[in-house]
Amino acid sequence: MERKVKILGTGKYLPQRQVTAEELDEKLGLSAGWVAKKSGVRIRHFVTDETASQMGAIAAQRALEMAGLDFSDIDCLVCASGTSQQEIPCTAALIQKELHQSHSGIPCFDMNSTCLSFVTALDILSCSLAMGCYQRILIVSTEVASVGLNWGQKESCVLFGDGAAAVVIGRTGEGENSRILSSRMQTYSEGAHYSEIRGGGTLVHPSQYGQGREADFQFDMDGKKIFRMTSQLITGFVEELLNSARIKKQDIRLVIPHQASGMALRIMGTKLGFSSSQMMNIIENHGNVIAASIPMALHEAIVQEKVQRGDLLLLLGTSAGLSLGGLLLAY
Amino acid sequence: MERKVKILGTGKYLPQRQVTAEELDEKLGLSAGWVAKKSGVRIRHFVTDETASQMGAIAAQRALEMAGLDFSDIDCLVCASGTSQQEIPCTAALIQKELHQSHSGIPCFDMNSTCLSFVTALDILSCSLAMGCYQRILIVSTEVASVGLNWGQKESCVLFGDGAAAVVIGRTGEGENSRILSSRMQTYSEGAHYSEIRGGGTLVHPSQYGQGREADFQFDMDGKKIFRMTSQLITGFVEELLNSARIKKQDIRLVIPHQASGMALRIMGTKLGFSSSQMMNIIENHGNVIAASIPMALHEAIVQEKVQRGDLLLLLGTSAGLSLGGLLLAY
Repeated sequence: MERKVKILGTGKYLPQRQVTAEELDEKLGLSAGWVAKKSGVRIRHFVTDETASQMGAIAAQRALEMAGLDFSDIDCLVCASGTSQQEIPCTAALIQKELHQSHSGIPCFDMNSTCLSFVTALDILSCSLAMGCYQRILIVSTEVASVGLNWGQKESCVLFGDGAAAVVIGRTGEGENSRILSSRMQTYSEGAHYSEIRGGGTLVHPSQYGQGREADFQFDMDGKKIFRMTSQLITGFVEELLNSARIKKQDIRLVIPHQASGMALRIMGTKLGFSSSQMMNIIENHGNVIAASIPMALHEAIVQEKVQRGDLLLLLGTSAGLSLGGLLLAY
Repeated sequence: MERKVKILGTGKYLPQRQVTAEELDEKLGLSAGWVAKKSGVRIRHFVTDETASQMGAIAAQRALEMAGLDFSDIDCLVCASGTSQQEIPCTAALIQKELHQSHSGIPCFDMNSTCLSFVTALDILSCSLAMGCYQRILIVSTEVASVGLNWGQKESCVLFGDGAAAVVIGRTGEGENSRILSSRMQTYSEGAHYSEIRGGGTLVHPSQYGQGREADFQFDMDGKKIFRMTSQLITGFVEELLNSARIKKQDIRLVIPHQASGMALRIMGTKLGFSSSQMMNIIENHGNVIAASIPMALHEAIVQEKVQRGDLLLLLGTSAGLSLGGLLLAY
């Protein structure tokens, strides 16, 4: 369903502390080069004293600046992240506070489909914009992955980084071509436990930490099962998305994929028949920043001038759930 | 902004175990009658071995039955809760799995504005329906409050219960009058820490449990501050919501308020000038079930035949954030 919505500005924030592949090789007792080769990540960033809401607020401020807007031009603030800062309240309210807008009354809520949270939020909220319920929405993805890694599971812990990205969206102006052409999401919960943090919610409450259940509070991933399931689904998924908008692969200027891992990006491009120049890749110096990966890669594509107004972009990813999500837009 | 959206069916689930006010008087060492008088809750339900996704799946199945629909008639499943079952993945995916629909591909994601999550989801997703992005959406609110209560904070721990409610929404048919007339949400994060669970997210990771930070993983509420802030805001908030739809208080058949506490319900009705027969009240035998309270009260209003098709309803509540939310609909 086409929606006349435009990306008005983007911003990102990375924590001060850089963690190199070499540092992790040493920390994990692995042979030199293992982490860089397996993950494709040379540098990821870990928070020291930054919080999710602080990172999100800085990314949001930068997105507003790029858009030439103030916070007062925004009428909705949505946090679209796979992790939350506190159990209660929603992270969006904490970001509003960090932005010194705690008296503004601007509505705040969170949306979560793990790594696809940003794509889901953009998809769903574009309808609220198109219907006129809101004029300009600030979507913030901010993730502190580093606190929940299992350092005994070397295949997963080397992938992730912390950071935030923000995007301001509004309705497309008269005579402008920016729009969402089509979107698609699918969830196959047979894969719900292929990547998870079992604890921290109401099932395994934090009070059970220290009762031999430490691993329940850390990220657990069965990469092989995810790979097998995703491989079966993704080609048909993308074909149907493109067909629904009568768009061919060669019409797409740039794919903005979830930055799952270096290998995942390579395989996705090859399998779907996109050239490497069509695949936006920021994994090497960011890592997998959960839901912030896609808006961060979008931001980089814009500031690196890999995309111009009117160009067709395909936001595409998989997430815990297991879900596939894609959104086709004219920037 | 008016949206031609209709509530097609509702359902609820309450855990088997009933916890009486008398049981809590005894547990907390309080004088007989204290809990019932202070909270207005005579019976709340606590899970024994039920999970959030199991409760949500049962409520969802019942809502589908009331609507005369199968799961295959649904094209989106949203969990709108203040708590989550696991840190990853989203609870909606876990509900899909409990419904034995793990191969269905139906998109699943979560929305969270704590106690207002259902109102937020209904508001935002009604735009997706109206735009034609989805045909019928299943919204499930499922809460296990009991695991996160602070039994040393008697004013808050006596209020809450566990349970789930679900609502199926679709587009209004030709010649039908059902619709959303108007909606409104405001967040004032100066009150972000008036009700919270500080731990469990990325700020205070569960690994810090047992380091003298147990209370950080339990619900903490400053009822007086919430009361003062809400009292200042709610009258103007509701007036603007009603004015935006040119509706007068006497036109409203029933207010479906968040069931915060017995006292909050009484004060809200008095302050806003609604008669007690206009205020749907299920607190006495449910307690405050966080985001499930409003859809559960809506379900009860429907099955108790307090509302007929075409009647005007006002869904209204406050939540951690601090947020106010309201939605005016013709059932």
